[in-house]
Amino acid sequence: MGKQKIFMDKLAQTFQIRNLLLRQAMAECLGTLILVMFGCGAVAQLVLSGGSHGMFLTVNFAFGFAATLGILVCGQVSGGHLNPAFPVYFVFQTLGAFLGSGIIFGLYYDALLNYAGELIVTGPNATAGIFATYPGKHLTLVNGFFDQTIGTAALIVCILAIVDPHNNPIPQGLEAFTVGFVVLVIGLSMGFNSGYAVNPARDLGPRLFTSLAGWGTEVFTANKCWFLVPIFAPFLGAIIGVVVYQLMVGFHQEGEVRDRKSQEERVKLANMNPKDALKEEML
Amino acid sequence: MGKQKIFMDKLAQTFQIRNLLLRQAMAECLGTLILVMFGCGAVAQLVLSGGSHGMFLTVNFAFGFAATLGILVCGQVSGGHLNPAFPVYFVFQTLGAFLGSGIIFGLYYDALLNYAGELIVTGPNATAGIFATYPGKHLTLVNGFFDQTIGTAALIVCILAIVDPHNNPIPQGLEAFTVGFVVLVIGLSMGFNSGYAVNPARDLGPRLFTSLAGWGTEVFTANKCWFLVPIFAPFLGAIIGVVVYQLMVGFHQEGEVRDRKSQEERVKLANMNPKDALKEEML
Amino acid sequence: MGKQKIFMDKLAQTFQIRNLLLRQAMAECLGTLILVMFGCGAVAQLVLSGGSHGMFLTVNFAFGFAATLGILVCGQVSGGHLNPAFPVYFVFQTLGAFLGSGIIFGLYYDALLNYAGELIVTGPNATAGIFATYPGKHLTLVNGFFDQTIGTAALIVCILAIVDPHNNPIPQGLEAFTVGFVVLVIGLSMGFNSGYAVNPARDLGPRLFTSLAGWGTEVFTANKCWFLVPIFAPFLGAIIGVVVYQLMVGFHQEGEVRDRKSQEERVKLANMNPKDALKEEML
Amino acid sequence: MGKQKIFMDKLAQTFQIRNLLLRQAMAECLGTLILVMFGCGAVAQLVLSGGSHGMFLTVNFAFGFAATLGILVCGQVSGGHLNPAFPVYFVFQTLGAFLGSGIIFGLYYDALLNYAGELIVTGPNATAGIFATYPGKHLTLVNGFFDQTIGTAALIVCILAIVDPHNNPIPQGLEAFTVGFVVLVIGLSMGFNSGYAVNPARDLGPRLFTSLAGWGTEVFTANKCWFLVPIFAPFLGAIIGVVVYQLMVGFHQEGEVRDRKSQEERVKLANMNPKDALKEEML
Repeated sequence: MGKQKIFMDKLAQTFQIRNLLLRQAMAECLGTLILVMFGCGAVAQLVLSGGSHGMFLTVNFAFGFAATLGILVCGQVSGGHLNPAFPVYFVFQTLGAFLGSGIIFGLYYDALLNYAGELIVTGPNATAGIFATYPGKHLTLVNGFFDQTIGTAALIVCILAIVDPHNNPIPQGLEAFTVGFVVLVIGLSMGFNSGYAVNPARDLGPRLFTSLAGWGTEVFTANKCWFLVPIFAPFLGAIIGVVVYQLMVGFHQEGEVRDRKSQEERVKLANMNPKDALKEEML
Repeated sequence: MGKQKIFMDKLAQTFQIRNLLLRQAMAECLGTLILVMFGCGAVAQLVLSGGSHGMFLTVNFAFGFAATLGILVCGQVSGGHLNPAFPVYFVFQTLGAFLGSGIIFGLYYDALLNYAGELIVTGPNATAGIFATYPGKHLTLVNGFFDQTIGTAALIVCILAIVDPHNNPIPQGLEAFTVGFVVLVIGLSMGFNSGYAVNPARDLGPRLFTSLAGWGTEVFTANKCWFLVPIFAPFLGAIIGVVVYQLMVGFHQEGEVRDRKSQEERVKLANMNPKDALKEEML
Repeated sequence: MGKQKIFMDKLAQTFQIRNLLLRQAMAECLGTLILVMFGCGAVAQLVLSGGSHGMFLTVNFAFGFAATLGILVCGQVSGGHLNPAFPVYFVFQTLGAFLGSGIIFGLYYDALLNYAGELIVTGPNATAGIFATYPGKHLTLVNGFFDQTIGTAALIVCILAIVDPHNNPIPQGLEAFTVGFVVLVIGLSMGFNSGYAVNPARDLGPRLFTSLAGWGTEVFTANKCWFLVPIFAPFLGAIIGVVVYQLMVGFHQEGEVRDRKSQEERVKLANMNPKDALKEEML
Repeated sequence: MGKQKIFMDKLAQTFQIRNLLLRQAMAECLGTLILVMFGCGAVAQLVLSGGSHGMFLTVNFAFGFAATLGILVCGQVSGGHLNPAFPVYFVFQTLGAFLGSGIIFGLYYDALLNYAGELIVTGPNATAGIFATYPGKHLTLVNGFFDQTIGTAALIVCILAIVDPHNNPIPQGLEAFTVGFVVLVIGLSMGFNSGYAVNPARDLGPRLFTSLAGWGTEVFTANKCWFLVPIFAPFLGAIIGVVVYQLMVGFHQEGEVRDRKSQEERVKLANMNPKDALKEEML
C-alpha cells in the first residue's frame, strides 16, 4: 500500500459521515442542486440571451435531463426523490435548490446586470422568473392550483409505473432516464400556465434565494401570493396520482401476485399429510 | 405484520379487480389517457401560447414520448396497444382519450377562454384542432385517406419489426422507447397533411369531448365529415402494414425457424430405430 | 392445431422465400425504403409547410431515427447496411429508396401541387431537393466532393467503432440507435453544404423517381451533373474511414488480441512434454 | 486460411503499434478529433447558414452526441477522457482538436469565403468563434473565469457519479451516452456566457489552427487574452468538482464499503481459534 493511498484513506475517513439519514439528506441536497442549477440555468440562458441561445424547448430538455442527472448522482444513496411531494428530506432539498439557483446567479451575474440594470420581479424585464415560477397573465389562482395538482399527479402516475416492482418493464438502471423523459414531457405539454414547478423544493429554494439576493419580498407577495400554490398543490397532486395509479393498475397487479402466492400455499398444504400441514400453519 | 400494512392490504383487496379483461381494459384506458393528455397538451401549449412555448417539433416529441409513457404504464398488463388499429379494447381506449382531452381542457381552461373568447372549430382562431385532427387547407379527402393509411402502415411495419420474436434486435424493456421513436418520426415526416392521428381512439375520444364541451356538432361535420378518415383509414393501413412486413421480412424469418425445426425433427427420426420413430410420429 | 393456424402456416409457406441472398436483398430494400420515406418525408414537411411544420433540426432527427428504424427492420436478416458505401445489395437499396420517395410523393401530392403549381428542379420554388440532394449556391464541385467524402468517412469511422468486436462498449441491441445518433450528428454539423447524402442509394433512388415523376432529366444535369458526386465520393470516403480507423485504433486492438493468443499458445507448448507439443504443432 | 486473410494480417502487423501509451494517445487524438469535428461543424453550420440550417440547440446536441461518439471510438483503449481537465494525453488531445477543426475548415471552405470575404476574429462578421470560444459582450474576465470553473466542476461531479463503482446505477456500456447528456445539458444551461469550452484541448487546438489558417494572432490577444481562461479555469473546476462530489457523496459510499469489509473481517477473526487468527493478522 503506497503512502498516497494511505493519505487518501485517512482523508476519506476524516470526512466520512456514518449517519445514514444525514448522508441521504446530503445526497438529496446535491441532487436537487443539480436539478435546479441546470434547469434554472437554461431559463436564464433563454431569458438573458433574448432568445438567441435558447427557447422553451431547451428549458424542457434541460429540466428533463437535469432530473436524470440529479437522480444519477444521489439515487444509489437516497433513492433520488429530489421532490418533497414524496414528503422526506424537505429541508435539504430546499437547501440544494437554494444553492443551485445561487450558482446560476453567480454564473450569469454580468448578464443579469446587463439585462435590465436592476432585479425586477414582474413585468416585461422581470428576471425573478428565471429562478422561481410565476403564473401567466391569463391564469387565475383556481386554474393555477388545478394546473400544479394535475402536473404533479401526472408525474406521480408515471413514476409509480416506472418503479412498481409488479409492473416494471424497464431494464434496471434506466429509471433515471425514464423519469427525465417524464419531466420533459410535462414541460412540453403542461408548461405554459406557470412553468411546471410540480415540486415544492424546486420552487421554494430559488424563491428564498431571490428574496435575499436583491429581488426582495415581492417574490412572495406577487400574483396574490402565488408562491403558496407550487408548495401545496403538489401534495394534493401526489395523493391523486397514487390513488389513480393504484385503482387503475397497481392494486390489481399486486393482488394477482398475492393471489398466486396464496394459491400455491393452499396447493402445498393440500399435498402435505395433516400433521405437517398443522405444524406449517402454526408457524 | 403492522396495523398499517394490514389496513393497506384490506384496501387493496377491496378495490382489486380479478377479471383479467376488465383489468386490461382499464390499463389501456389509463395508457391512452396519458398518450392523449401529454400529446394534446403539447398542441394546446403551442396554439394557446401563440408559439412562444412550443413548435411543431415539441408536439412531435410530446406525442412520441407520451406513447412511450402510456405503454410503460399499461404494457405489462395489457400489452400497451393504445391503438384500436390493433382491434381490441376500442371502447376503453376511446374513453381514455376522452378523459385525457378533458384534463387538458381543464388545465388550459383560462388560456382557452383568453385565446379567442369562444370555442371555434375552423378558421384562424380555431381551437378544436388542439384535441382532434383536421385536414390542412391543401388536402383533398382522397389524399387524406391515403395519408392516414400510409401513416398507420408505416407505424405497423416498424412495430412488427420491434415485437417480432424472430427478428428482434432490441434489448428487452426498450420496446416502449422504440415505439416512441416511431411515433416521433411519423410526426416529423407525416404530420403536415392532417396531424398524424394514425389511431381511431386518439382522434375519436377527444372529438367526442369537444362536441360536448362547447365546440358543438361542427367537429363531426367540418371538412366534409373528415372525422371518418382517421377512424377507418388506420384499419386499412394496419392490414397493409402487416402484409408488407410479412411479405418482405416476416414470413421468411418465421419460415427459416420452422425449416430448421423440421430438419432437426427429420434427423432425429432417421437416427431412431423404426419402432420408436413410429411411436413418435403417432403422438 | 386450429384451422386458422393451418391456413396461416400454408400462407406463410406459399410466400416464403428460401434463397438467403434474395431475402437479404428484400430486407435491405425495405430498410432503405423506411430510411428514405421518413427522411425525405421530413424534408417535404419542412419545405411544403413553408417552415411552419419543420426546420432543419427536424430533418436531422428524422434521418437519424429513420436510419435506426430501417436498421431495426432489416438488421437481423441482412445486417442493416442501407448504404452501398458498403458495396452490397446496391440495386435493391436503390429500389427501396425509389419506392420510399414514391410514397412521400403520393402522401404530399396535394401539397406539392399547391406549393408551386409545377414540379421545379432549381430556384426558389424548387421541390426536387425534397427527394435528392443538390449543392448550396456557395459550393464548388471540388468542395462538394470533399464534403461527401469527409461525411462518409466520419460515418464509417463511427460505425466501425460501434461494430468492432475488439472495441465495442455498447450493450448488444443498441447498435441501431447509436448509428442513428451518428447520422443525426452528421446532419447537425455537415448538412449545410449539400444535404449530407453520404449514401449513393439514398440519393440515386429518389433522383430516378423524380426524373420519372415529372421533374424531368434536369435532376441529372443540374449543377454540373452534381448527381455524380453523392454516388462516387462515398466510396472514397468509406475507404478513408476504414484506413483512419484501422491505423488509429483498429489494428492495435486486433493485434493485442492476436498477441495475447499466441502468447498463451507459447506458454501452453512450453508446459507440454516434447512429443505432445510436436503433435499439436503438426495439426 | 485464404491468401487475402494472410495479406490483411501482414498489413495489420506492419502497422500495429505495441506501445500502450502511444496507442492510448492516438485513440484520445481520434476521439477528440471527432468531438471537435462534429461540435465545431455544428457551430459552422449555424453561423455560415445565417441560422437557416441550425440554432444554438443544434450546437448543444452536436457537442453532446459528439462527446458520446468520441468516447465510443476511444473509450475501450484509453478511457475516453477527451479532456485534459483529467490531466493526461494533453498534447495528443490538442492535436486531435487541431485536426478536427482543420477538417471543418476544409469542409466549409467555400462557405467561409462566401460568408464575409475574409477571416475575421471579432465583430458582426466574425468566424473565429466557429472554432475556439470567445466571451459574450456582457462578460467580464472574473465572471468568465467563474463560468468556466463552474461549468467544468458541474461536468466533473456528474462524470464522477457516472463512473463511481460504489454509486453506479447505469447499465454497463451506457456511460458514453450519459456523458453526452451531461455535455448537452451544460450547453443548454451554461452556454450563453462564452460557449462552454470546459475543456482546454477542445479550445486550444482549434485556436492554434485558426491562428495559422488566416485569422492571425488576434485569436490569442482578443478580449484581453481570453484564451487563457478556458485553459486554466477547467483545472480549478475539476478540483472543485472532485471535492464537492467526494464530500457530499463519494467518501461516504466508499467508507460504507470499507466499514462493511472490516466488519466482516472482525467477525471472521472472532470465529477463528486464536492461533489461526494470529496467523491471519500477521499476513
